[in-house]
Amino acid sequence: MRMVDLIAKKRDGKALMTEELEWIIRGYTNGDIPDYQMSALAMAIYFRGMTAEETAALTMAIVHSGEVIDLSGIRGVKVDKHSTGGVGDTTTLVLGPLVASVGVPVAKMSGRGLGHTGGTIDKLESVPGFHVEISKDEFLRLVNENQIAIIGQTGDLTPADKKLYALRDVTATVNSIPLIASSIMSKKIAAGADAIVLDVKTGAGAFMKDLDGARQLARAMVEIGKRVGRRTMAVISDMSQPLGYAVGNALEVKEAIATLQGNGPRDLTELCLTLGSHMVYLAEKAPSLAEARRLLEEALCSGKAAAKMKTFLAAQGGDPSVVDDPDKLPRAAHTIPVAAGEDGYVAEIVADEVGTAAMWLGAGRATKEDAIDLAVGIVLHKKIGDRVQKGETLATIHSNRADVRDVEEKLAAAIRISPQPAAPPPLIYETIG
Amino acid sequence: MRMVDLIAKKRDGKALMTEELEWIIRGYTNGDIPDYQMSALAMAIYFRGMTAEETAALTMAIVHSGEVIDLSGIRGVKVDKHSTGGVGDTTTLVLGPLVASVGVPVAKMSGRGLGHTGGTIDKLESVPGFHVEISKDEFLRLVNENQIAIIGQTGDLTPADKKLYALRDVTATVNSIPLIASSIMSKKIAAGADAIVLDVKTGAGAFMKDLDGARQLARAMVEIGKRVGRRTMAVISDMSQPLGYAVGNALEVKEAIATLQGNGPRDLTELCLTLGSHMVYLAEKAPSLAEARRLLEEALCSGKAAAKMKTFLAAQGGDPSVVDDPDKLPRAAHTIPVAAGEDGYVAEIVADEVGTAAMWLGAGRATKEDAIDLAVGIVLHKKIGDRVQKGETLATIHSNRADVRDVEEKLAAAIRISPQPAAPPPLIYETIG
Repeated sequence: MRMVDLIAKKRDGKALMTEELEWIIRGYTNGDIPDYQMSALAMAIYFRGMTAEETAALTMAIVHSGEVIDLSGIRGVKVDKHSTGGVGDTTTLVLGPLVASVGVPVAKMSGRGLGHTGGTIDKLESVPGFHVEISKDEFLRLVNENQIAIIGQTGDLTPADKKLYALRDVTATVNSIPLIASSIMSKKIAAGADAIVLDVKTGAGAFMKDLDGARQLARAMVEIGKRVGRRTMAVISDMSQPLGYAVGNALEVKEAIATLQGNGPRDLTELCLTLGSHMVYLAEKAPSLAEARRLLEEALCSGKAAAKMKTFLAAQGGDPSVVDDPDKLPRAAHTIPVAAGEDGYVAEIVADEVGTAAMWLGAGRATKEDAIDLAVGIVLHKKIGDRVQKGETLATIHSNRADVRDVEEKLAAAIRISPQPAAPPPLIYETIG
Repeated sequence: MRMVDLIAKKRDGKALMTEELEWIIRGYTNGDIPDYQMSALAMAIYFRGMTAEETAALTMAIVHSGEVIDLSGIRGVKVDKHSTGGVGDTTTLVLGPLVASVGVPVAKMSGRGLGHTGGTIDKLESVPGFHVEISKDEFLRLVNENQIAIIGQTGDLTPADKKLYALRDVTATVNSIPLIASSIMSKKIAAGADAIVLDVKTGAGAFMKDLDGARQLARAMVEIGKRVGRRTMAVISDMSQPLGYAVGNALEVKEAIATLQGNGPRDLTELCLTLGSHMVYLAEKAPSLAEARRLLEEALCSGKAAAKMKTFLAAQGGDPSVVDDPDKLPRAAHTIPVAAGEDGYVAEIVADEVGTAAMWLGAGRATKEDAIDLAVGIVLHKKIGDRVQKGETLATIHSNRADVRDVEEKLAAAIRISPQPAAPPPLIYETIG
């Protein structure tokens, strides 16, 4: 086999065979195939696409490029959730304890990552004492005991994906459905998932700006799951405005706690119930989606979900009393209100602009070396469709620096007020699976 | 400027600006832009193409990546000829002395190259004593004195093209019209041409297998010439069967001498007269193509063209008596006839198969390090459309090894005989410019 011939094959619109894709990924991972050939192939894939069969084969080739986590020591169906990412997306913090509280084993491996705020682990570390430095044995034991534990990325999972993603990032080949789908699915499968629930975001704050792209990505991932024996469902949800009200690490933990107590924002609660129902159903803890949802609603009302949060935090060194007293979480030195400049209706809250404003405060990392300020961020007071009066607070800036004029201006530009009533966007567009 | 943004721009079908292309070629030449970004861009160009304006800008950016030869010391319009390459293509050996004999200055820079036979310099070195190791000053002096001289590649011409071509070769991005057109034209312009005559081959033995591709390439190159102020014309000629009869270095020199004496193969003579007419016309040595052709026909008949060949060879150390006695050229130890296996008509002579057979005898280089045997090769006795009888000689193998069964088999397979009469292919398809 010669790489140049395989590039030509894809360039000419033909499908690559499973053994060809395995050969490519193996050679690329061990350095036999140079970056310049891989980037040419990625561009050819960008233009020609891949069949469902190719995409599934590519996914499994990436899975087998590194370690595959063995979760067979955990009883039950291990369901993992993945979100394509957005602003103020607190669902993981809520969903873990929520579905664990009805018996779904949650064996979460998570990272820190770059972005507007930290990753799930960063957020949880705003709980005093909480840590993810546990052994793999302890991780498995905790999941079996409490149905939930979280551990940092261990081992060398999907090295081909890491290398390929870094290459795609600098060669304008990120935006290819089969490459995105195989990247996401390979990581979930390597992390040991039996079943996968996907939250594919669409809108200004999402990677997929339009619904059609989100739908294509969701379908490609569900199709991969079907072909490689992992039951997979996808929900397409809105990310034109931030989810919930809080954008920031400790601020989002606080919002997650409120949601687990049944007092969360309507949109965040609804999305968690929808995604959670699919997780419970796929984990075979309920005979139908409706019954799964009933179980979860009951867990929120009864305090079972909040209690599971305490158990989870305590098991990994965290102070469980933050659940009853969230003011124990890190707090910023200054809170500065951003007032409406006119009467009207909130017509737009550009999600990624709000995210960027939070990053400017120090809530996120622009480069791997940056430190995160867990206390800072933004809390919205209004969402799209809400009526506002001039002078009313639209958002509160939580900051450890006194001068936040840059952030105020950014937010004022991101939140558009219209004299005409505006309709809130739908929260969930469709479910695929 | 960021390369990733320029790749994305081309990927999305937009045209790159002149300054963007200059920045890319400068950065790629000096190593600031890595191969993996350049190959992704090349693949995007493969799919999206380039406008005429982009292609011209890319050409001049490549020209300026290295040295540009200054031929202003030579009187007259310097016309260069380029062929896209084929099997048994002896036109350069004929055209140089031919057009020089009517006053067109021929300042040829040439290489050795890889292929079925050697390059023009290899071929000429089969004349005892001939060499191209002359100084630039002597080169200019000889052209002014004799209207013709040839020199090896000097200086660092179009380094961007060398680097980019090597990359395209291993990333399946060779076959892109704007990339091929800018590669060819940049080399001719850097070599100092004022005007350019292109011989674009089409057919089984050519780089461009089909007429439509050849036409697109020809048009792209003529358009570049127009935009950068170099008068350019292109002739699309047949390369389904080898041109002339000889394939091999000394064998082709012998055929070129015969042609210069007015006794050459019909197709080779006709193509040389057509290409030569364009050269004479562009060099302003004749007021029309018809008058240019008349001058050239007269040079062949009168002995002027053959005399110019002698002057040319002698000026660079070669033995001019080979023109009167071509048997002084290197001769192979064995000549083996290949006989027709049946009665009929020659229906096909697959040009590149014949070329490969010649390379197997040692006439060409597969890698840069290979030595060439100047004496060996193949001489056809029949062309497509000719009638043959069983046992009649189709071709003669000139070999320095006794056992040539592999070459015999290759030739027997490459020359197809049909019971029905076959029409010879047209020699010249069209002229563009």
